[in-house]
Amino acid sequence: MNNSLSYRAGQPSAEQRLHEYNIELPSIPTPLGAYVEVVQTGNLLFLSGMLPVAGGKPAYLGRLGAELTVEDGRKAAAIACLNVLAAARHHLGSLDKVSRVVRLGVSIATDGDFREHPDVADAASEMLVHVFGEEKLSTRIVLGVASLPLGMPVELEVIFEVTP
Amino acid sequence: MNNSLSYRAGQPSAEQRLHEYNIELPSIPTPLGAYVEVVQTGNLLFLSGMLPVAGGKPAYLGRLGAELTVEDGRKAAAIACLNVLAAARHHLGSLDKVSRVVRLGVSIATDGDFREHPDVADAASEMLVHVFGEEKLSTRIVLGVASLPLGMPVELEVIFEVTP
Amino acid sequence: MNNSLSYRAGQPSAEQRLHEYNIELPSIPTPLGAYVEVVQTGNLLFLSGMLPVAGGKPAYLGRLGAELTVEDGRKAAAIACLNVLAAARHHLGSLDKVSRVVRLGVSIATDGDFREHPDVADAASEMLVHVFGEEKLSTRIVLGVASLPLGMPVELEVIFEVTP
Repeated sequence: MNNSLSYRAGQPSAEQRLHEYNIELPSIPTPLGAYVEVVQTGNLLFLSGMLPVAGGKPAYLGRLGAELTVEDGRKAAAIACLNVLAAARHHLGSLDKVSRVVRLGVSIATDGDFREHPDVADAASEMLVHVFGEEKLSTRIVLGVASLPLGMPVELEVIFEVTP
Repeated sequence: MNNSLSYRAGQPSAEQRLHEYNIELPSIPTPLGAYVEVVQTGNLLFLSGMLPVAGGKPAYLGRLGAELTVEDGRKAAAIACLNVLAAARHHLGSLDKVSRVVRLGVSIATDGDFREHPDVADAASEMLVHVFGEEKLSTRIVLGVASLPLGMPVELEVIFEVTP
Repeated sequence: MNNSLSYRAGQPSAEQRLHEYNIELPSIPTPLGAYVEVVQTGNLLFLSGMLPVAGGKPAYLGRLGAELTVEDGRKAAAIACLNVLAAARHHLGSLDKVSRVVRLGVSIATDGDFREHPDVADAASEMLVHVFGEEKLSTRIVLGVASLPLGMPVELEVIFEVTP
């Protein structure tokens, strides 16, 4: 019955998509200081800056345009995005409560004349589209910054709209 | 009748001001990846980072404090701001639905000891004041960043409050 | 009676805590351009980027990892945080109307391989915890940027949730 409903709507849920794409969420990240990973106010869920941390350690260190390639940056963005999803699901219970991805901020540590920011940011955007679908696509703000906490190359800042 | 009403209120509407100041909005910008230009959630309208793109191409490339002058930066900020207005109007139908400019983020690609960020940011702030009036003035966050997508010098991030 | 109420709740109010910790708020900062320090929309209070300005002048100039130490950065963050509190109280009348610190953005001007961003940001987070308590802890986004307005080393961007 549920199946036929989602078939009719043509939209598998976010949790179904996670399963379909074999996306396994990591354990939730640990704050690096006196803050929390998630704050909900009304229908908006604000997340802390998420870094490419895996197993409690930086998965990548360095800057794009120096030590790291665009492909490294894309992998780092994907790992940070898994942390976004893990933190949101931990707070909400289920990612099916996300009604819209409102904002995706992507900060990339860059050196010299690096210009391929959109390619790096797309690794996060594409994962969000896989999980939430085209119709929940976010706005996006991409910056090349001088440095990020602990020397990591990518940081994501996401705001979700959630159902009550 | 409408005229006398706005005269009495002392406030020409945003669309009237656009006309008065001869501000012509460009066609809406094209996203550089898997995202959308505008997301509305409740009364808040989030816009993607807007760049100094005109006619589908970067109008300026380079950094303030290196290849570009403060005056270049101001012109780039003004072009990016036109894209903000075009994207908002495309979504809302009319800029008269903007009840407040909540937040203006200005990221400027800088090199060396550049310090004149407020002058560059004011080019965007002043256009928003022209269009929306003093009473809708925004908060503002100005950053000097290492680089921006495709090598452009300025990126604007705006949140509007809109009437339902 | 008030006392017994807050004793029962176990939570001194923000204004009581300010007093307890001997935190004296400065006069409100002056905008550096065509913007305002605070915009409220619904229950959200957006603040402009707050800088380490004291007595109308930059208290610190320079970058972390170059002219300035982590300790300098922490002092600059604390001064900027006092400006956050002053601007919010000026708008709200009382900081007791803050029901949650939603988001703390910390941008730090850095040079070279600076990696101790969390230590600097914690100076602001800790002050917010002192004033608002653990249960109102914010999300946090920390960036190392190339430069900040007038050459200052730290800028804070805060969103509060407030009671109507």
